[in-house]
Amino acid sequence: MSFIRHLIESIKEKRSAICMGLDPRLDKEGQIPEYLKEEFETPNGIILEFNKALIDHTSDLIPVIKPQMAFYEKYEALKALKETIKYAHKKDLLVILDAKRNDIGSTCEAYAYSLFKNYHADACTINAYFGIDGVKPFLDYKNKGIFILVKTSNPSSGDFQNLFAVRLDDVNNKKSQIRADGITLERNYLHMANLVNRWSKTLEKFSNYCNLGVVAGATYPDELKILRKTIPNSMILIPGYGAQGATAEDIKHGFDNQGLGAIVNSSRGIMFAYQKNKIKPEHFDKAARTMILKMKKRINKKINLSKF
Amino acid sequence: MSFIRHLIESIKEKRSAICMGLDPRLDKEGQIPEYLKEEFETPNGIILEFNKALIDHTSDLIPVIKPQMAFYEKYEALKALKETIKYAHKKDLLVILDAKRNDIGSTCEAYAYSLFKNYHADACTINAYFGIDGVKPFLDYKNKGIFILVKTSNPSSGDFQNLFAVRLDDVNNKKSQIRADGITLERNYLHMANLVNRWSKTLEKFSNYCNLGVVAGATYPDELKILRKTIPNSMILIPGYGAQGATAEDIKHGFDNQGLGAIVNSSRGIMFAYQKNKIKPEHFDKAARTMILKMKKRINKKINLSKF
Repeated sequence: MSFIRHLIESIKEKRSAICMGLDPRLDKEGQIPEYLKEEFETPNGIILEFNKALIDHTSDLIPVIKPQMAFYEKYEALKALKETIKYAHKKDLLVILDAKRNDIGSTCEAYAYSLFKNYHADACTINAYFGIDGVKPFLDYKNKGIFILVKTSNPSSGDFQNLFAVRLDDVNNKKSQIRADGITLERNYLHMANLVNRWSKTLEKFSNYCNLGVVAGATYPDELKILRKTIPNSMILIPGYGAQGATAEDIKHGFDNQGLGAIVNSSRGIMFAYQKNKIKPEHFDKAARTMILKMKKRINKKINLSKF
Repeated sequence: MSFIRHLIESIKEKRSAICMGLDPRLDKEGQIPEYLKEEFETPNGIILEFNKALIDHTSDLIPVIKPQMAFYEKYEALKALKETIKYAHKKDLLVILDAKRNDIGSTCEAYAYSLFKNYHADACTINAYFGIDGVKPFLDYKNKGIFILVKTSNPSSGDFQNLFAVRLDDVNNKKSQIRADGITLERNYLHMANLVNRWSKTLEKFSNYCNLGVVAGATYPDELKILRKTIPNSMILIPGYGAQGATAEDIKHGFDNQGLGAIVNSSRGIMFAYQKNKIKPEHFDKAARTMILKMKKRINKKINLSKF
């Protein structure tokens, strides 16, 4: 089954558009509970145990998880990553592997192979600075999902993404934001979205959405509103909820009037909820569940779920 | 010692600006010789043996190698990658790990840690779509080198990189290429280069260059010429020589009048030279050496090495 169909069916069934980020941090004191570190010793052992407990306590509430590759690479815990994905699949969870890979030709094919064939991810994040050459090798896996970075959640995302891009050959484009003497100006993030829209045209749709989505940070709600209109066939993966400061009010514009169109990721906010709420480390998994229930309530109140 | 100092000293000593790409391909028949595949069985074993033989036969002719992370991930041969880097260091070679990582905050720190601390790379490639937030965690390793993607070598690199970016706040910028009614227009790749130039200002220089470089494809010589002027303090890593069709004539504009400023990478052209030149597979390492000698002669004829 295609990623998008599976994702939308799961969102409807669980009445939840929440994605749990699994970004294990071992070196900062008290993030993964100390008792787990003592009991399981190796990074692979500790992280897998931590992830499995989180999955056990949340899999009925969320359609998808998003492990962040960087941390598994840092701790050389790729075995734990592979086992986590296998375990998530058993528990009816989809997996977006957040790897932001980017390259061309056979190198790009090698990355796609690694994420989809070695790790069995259902979807991944990529960076499309290379243009279509860096996207096609991922699209060639017809049933897999892809999320292209468009407007990232960080403070300096504007350094490059907010520049105005001019398309001299396209002066009548309706989506442009500013005009100056017959020249169409758009910010770079929006032009990246226009490329995604163009690449989506021929892809199969399910409930209006296709396997090619984008990443756009919850910390920029105005841009989210523009993006929802610019890419009507792309799911928006929204990071930045919780720990990065965005709220349910900020993310609501990423959704369409069916209550679809976006998934909202929280990593630290869920994984380390026990710390923030001063709950015993032994109950980190229950604290994560409570946090997701709260988040779900807040988000579902802001979006239109009437059609489900 | 800082990467840039070590690199420039080695370029001068070996009179060579050539980088050997190590992108092992196991599945295409006849790329890594069959006899090696039979003798060493596992991807880790085969690839390490292949890389070591190439290093043994070329380390006196080149300052630096560039393993392409994607292939080691595809074949799950990260052990071979680590051992290759260790072996290269013993043979007085610098290592640029081509990983094109990109993220922010603690995630970006985790990538930098993985490349510089787990693999002991001397430098790496990154994608700066995120702006400075995705660059700083790498720059924090003061002695390491960084190459930011600016103008990539692939056919569709223009999809995004060749758009005109407008900076309304900077109408008097001398480096702009086109002007329209007081608005400064620049192509995106050039704006990325301007960001690199800005980020380079405070970094330590050695022979005019700093640890922050760029990647710009040999397949776009006109852009290379513009870049050499735009980023006077950044080394240009030039892929695309050989297999991707670029020649010594194409890459000469990446160099300054001291014969410095660029390193020219060739991967398949060197690694699989035995196939192209119909040499026995058992002599793949000697064929690589012959190819580098030829490449060195061609390149050195085009650049000014008088100051060495």
